[in-house]
Amino acid sequence: MTAGPIGVFDSGVGGLTVLRALRERLPDADFVYLGDTARLPYGTKSPDTVRRYALQAAEALRSRQVQALVVACNTASGFALDALAARWPEIPVEGVVEPGAAAACRRSAHGDIAVIGTEATIRGGAYQDAIRRLRPDARVRVRACSVFVALAEEGWFDSPAAEAVARAYLADWFDGPEPPDTLVLGCTHFPVLAGLIRRIVGDELALVDSASTTAAVLAERLGPQVDGGGSVTFLATDGAERFATVGSRFLGTPLDPAAVEIVDL
Amino acid sequence: MTAGPIGVFDSGVGGLTVLRALRERLPDADFVYLGDTARLPYGTKSPDTVRRYALQAAEALRSRQVQALVVACNTASGFALDALAARWPEIPVEGVVEPGAAAACRRSAHGDIAVIGTEATIRGGAYQDAIRRLRPDARVRVRACSVFVALAEEGWFDSPAAEAVARAYLADWFDGPEPPDTLVLGCTHFPVLAGLIRRIVGDELALVDSASTTAAVLAERLGPQVDGGGSVTFLATDGAERFATVGSRFLGTPLDPAAVEIVDL
Repeated sequence: MTAGPIGVFDSGVGGLTVLRALRERLPDADFVYLGDTARLPYGTKSPDTVRRYALQAAEALRSRQVQALVVACNTASGFALDALAARWPEIPVEGVVEPGAAAACRRSAHGDIAVIGTEATIRGGAYQDAIRRLRPDARVRVRACSVFVALAEEGWFDSPAAEAVARAYLADWFDGPEPPDTLVLGCTHFPVLAGLIRRIVGDELALVDSASTTAAVLAERLGPQVDGGGSVTFLATDGAERFATVGSRFLGTPLDPAAVEIVDL
Repeated sequence: MTAGPIGVFDSGVGGLTVLRALRERLPDADFVYLGDTARLPYGTKSPDTVRRYALQAAEALRSRQVQALVVACNTASGFALDALAARWPEIPVEGVVEPGAAAACRRSAHGDIAVIGTEATIRGGAYQDAIRRLRPDARVRVRACSVFVALAEEGWFDSPAAEAVARAYLADWFDGPEPPDTLVLGCTHFPVLAGLIRRIVGDELALVDSASTTAAVLAERLGPQVDGGGSVTFLATDGAERFATVGSRFLGTPLDPAAVEIVDL
């Protein structure tokens, strides 16, 4: 008998970049992934609404006997992690903000860190707070880059239009006299744009995405051996077809719409 | 005693372009505008979900004694108009798809019509059906332009990045040997991008947005005289601050967050 699957949830498909990193780190574990596609995006919604949605999504996963919960959404990590951890103290509950902030603080040479994310993540200030807690002398610059989400969902990872958008968001920082030395991709949609972003920001910069760091932190909390059959169950609150089409871009492997179970929260 | 306000609803703030056209056409009427911002966007959701949300939004407006209902959202017009009209046969229920399709058919010289909209609007086929009903010999080309929604919400109406995105979506049609003679802006977010789009598509083309045509159709249904105090009540399901900031871009006049009432559907 195994300890149960690892539950992962996100507002939609972006969190599949985190699932991918988790599976690489814990290949034997079973996973249940829930994308709250009927109510996405969380990134433009208020803290109370995001917290309510996150609790409902986590409840649905908990009812499937998960042994750990990963909040694979930066906005929900920022607003709801404390509430989720308080509700289920008996299992590890891990978000993506703290691991991403910790990785940025470790990798930054001079503590000059830039963070990009959705409107709600940036306005909520969770990255700014986490970085300053770990490295009080850090200079932290932030910017909401909402159009990046649409680009990533459209699959425009590397086109003139995508480059023009990336330039509009980032050029002033990186063409300026004091460019940041570290850039945190503070939205699970953004890792698929890493190649494009790298062309704007140059090779010197440390580019941090929280997917792999979150996977490492969870693996450490669960111990070296997580048993299971290596299975993944996909749940979504709307649109199996779109979940599969757009999701495969983030997961990095094809996804069958028939394998996506629609649930009501 | 007046006949009650005119109810207008949209998934978010895009429908404010329709409200603006309605107020120009019916300056004395009172309006109640509802933006379902907690659940936006509708444009990536399934028909059943959109229909359910639209019925709930319309129910909230009907409880405020509206004398007419305008579905200022292309996706909801395409999926939910029949259900709404069947539920409230005693009042006019008007969507934006039919008026937009009718205007396109009237203005197209050769019946070569292109329609752009959200994923759900285009996939649902409501514009294609409406145009072919009115003009069976029309050639109809369609394309989902999801990134336009993000550009419009970001306020990038006229920047190199916005132009690169518009070029990516439209250039092949309009640089090709047989460009369409009419382009329908089949999403209420798109009218604010009209100037930008015009630069890509050229001056010859008829550019149709359904806001003004919907206002004309409703004015005709209600008769020449609609009394009231010219007031507007703003309701939203989430985020008064963001509704006001982003909404003012679509309404064309400043909006006070304190004037936006948050309601639960």
